[in-house]
Amino acid sequence: MVQDERQERIFRALADNSRRKILDLLRDRAMTTGRICGKLPELDRCTTMQHLRVLERAGLIIVRREGRLRWNYLDSTPIQRIYDRWIIRYARPSVELLTRLKNDLEEGSVTGKR
Amino acid sequence: MVQDERQERIFRALADNSRRKILDLLRDRAMTTGRICGKLPELDRCTTMQHLRVLERAGLIIVRREGRLRWNYLDSTPIQRIYDRWIIRYARPSVELLTRLKNDLEEGSVTGKR
Repeated sequence: MVQDERQERIFRALADNSRRKILDLLRDRAMTTGRICGKLPELDRCTTMQHLRVLERAGLIIVRREGRLRWNYLDSTPIQRIYDRWIIRYARPSVELLTRLKNDLEEGSVTGKR
Repeated sequence: MVQDERQERIFRALADNSRRKILDLLRDRAMTTGRICGKLPELDRCTTMQHLRVLERAGLIIVRREGRLRWNYLDSTPIQRIYDRWIIRYARPSVELLTRLKNDLEEGSVTGKR
């Protein structure tokens, strides 16, 4: 099924730490490919460009060409869809609360002590 | 990094269609392992149990034993975290709107015609 293949591509794209880092970089602003490469000095340019292609094919980024520049934008639609698929609308406030509590517990900012 | 490995496990767990189906089954209610096996006749019991183990290790389901029964619950915390990581709070209403529009367009319920 086409839908399943698309989903598979999204999760495989997200299953790599460097690709998740690229999405983090693009969360708040679009970036040129050159800028992204500069932010990931641990990777060579060719590897970073391969990651960008995987993300683009998965529909997680949109690329706009402007002369010699390639601008990369995060497309969060697939992430919104993951959320919509498994988090029931009426349960959202309590799931958010639970996640916040779990985050705090893991960071050690909430303890059983008074 | 421990955090990266955990993330990797989550996305690899989600990158399989049968496992996504299991999460769909558990979205609205907890189910026993026997019931889940019954809902997935295309898989043998052993394969389904393997999928359940992968989901449990990824933290996407919680298992509670009750005598001979194993009750499986969806834990949506990892999904809430994916959402929180890449969707900026102030952008949420517009991302939801865009996703709804894209869904409608793909289903063909919105056209350019009057």
